[in-house]
Amino acid sequence: MPKIQTVLSPMLLQLTNLTGKTVVVIDILRATSSMCVAFAHGAQRIKPVSTPQECITYAPQGFICAAERDGKPVEGFAIGNSPFSYMEPAIKGASIAITTTNGTQAIEMSKSASRIMIGSFLNKKALCKELIRQQQDVILLCSGWKNNYNLEDTLFAGAVAKELQDEFSIADDATIGAIDLYEVASRDLNSYIKKSSHAHRFITLGIEKDIAFCLQQDIYDLVPILENDFLILPESNLIASIT
Amino acid sequence: MPKIQTVLSPMLLQLTNLTGKTVVVIDILRATSSMCVAFAHGAQRIKPVSTPQECITYAPQGFICAAERDGKPVEGFAIGNSPFSYMEPAIKGASIAITTTNGTQAIEMSKSASRIMIGSFLNKKALCKELIRQQQDVILLCSGWKNNYNLEDTLFAGAVAKELQDEFSIADDATIGAIDLYEVASRDLNSYIKKSSHAHRFITLGIEKDIAFCLQQDIYDLVPILENDFLILPESNLIASIT
Repeated sequence: MPKIQTVLSPMLLQLTNLTGKTVVVIDILRATSSMCVAFAHGAQRIKPVSTPQECITYAPQGFICAAERDGKPVEGFAIGNSPFSYMEPAIKGASIAITTTNGTQAIEMSKSASRIMIGSFLNKKALCKELIRQQQDVILLCSGWKNNYNLEDTLFAGAVAKELQDEFSIADDATIGAIDLYEVASRDLNSYIKKSSHAHRFITLGIEKDIAFCLQQDIYDLVPILENDFLILPESNLIASIT
Repeated sequence: MPKIQTVLSPMLLQLTNLTGKTVVVIDILRATSSMCVAFAHGAQRIKPVSTPQECITYAPQGFICAAERDGKPVEGFAIGNSPFSYMEPAIKGASIAITTTNGTQAIEMSKSASRIMIGSFLNKKALCKELIRQQQDVILLCSGWKNNYNLEDTLFAGAVAKELQDEFSIADDATIGAIDLYEVASRDLNSYIKKSSHAHRFITLGIEKDIAFCLQQDIYDLVPILENDFLILPESNLIASIT
């Protein structure tokens, strides 16, 4: 039986050997949610990069360049990481370069894994189906907020682990805690998330509707994966999303 | 209103400025529980040290030397960190030097704080009373297991935060999650802890009765603090424990 493990902050990732494992990168508010939105709206590929400076170098090649820091678009960039920015007609067929406070860093740190997948409530069911199909050890990596633990990423890890627990063995206390916390929160996820420090920050930024959007479950049947440093939808996903 | 914050692993402590704050070091299974046992049985002072090599240097000065690694006493040391080792008549009036896998390291890492206190279920009520009296920002530091998150330390952080929440403001998601997880687990703490990876390890080691002992609540009315690199009971504690 493959194992499932939860890493509650990118800073704790160094404790885990990723070789031969699948890492699911989780940044519910909002990077990994928005990446799913982009693919659902026809994006061709997404290049996660570390800095706004690196991001802008993709502009001459026709990439849409997106940069977020501290919950806001970086000056000089048209878009940050609001999911609604990735629903525009320009997204269809586009290549996108993106850098965010937490999520794109977590992807970068996971590169020694055998597979990297993008997880969000929006594609949860499709993700779980794919993880069960692969039968490989899974690391649920919470991007957190500047390396601090956050509730929304932990709850999503709990939601995934709950779905997988009949087919995977649970390898650590973080996964047990995440499942039980999700049990509490899932009665009313939106209200629960509003308790979090991150949500308070978001309310200050006036982007509450982003939160409500990102907490919708299973609206996209796709699983972005990292291949040659680009996030793409693999063939099987593309077929699934067309039919 | 002072703030309360939870650090789920010593590795995450570097994200937090400890200046002017009280750190409560938590290592439920078993270092901080056993330290409370030692003081309840008349220990005069405890010197937390980093390595068995350093620990043994205190022997010529008449210290009782205790060393634990991976849940077992280190070879050459009579005692490790089982609470039952600290109930012996020899403990009364003794100076003790101790090194453990997780707890003593967490104390060492907290030294920039204005106060360091020892927390366990055994002295929870006394600890909370003291924290409320002091009205200083509090960091609940979970020692974890080799820098990994563990359930029992998180649950204790939740138990303390729940007691303090009317008098302190909750500063982070980790504290919110810990309180809610404690609400779930407190219905039957012993059974809940048995789900944890740490408890599995303990059962393998044959020290289940240590777990049951360490999960007893409020049996000691004392709060060990660090002063000049020694854990002691401050005057007020001594009086409380005598009367």
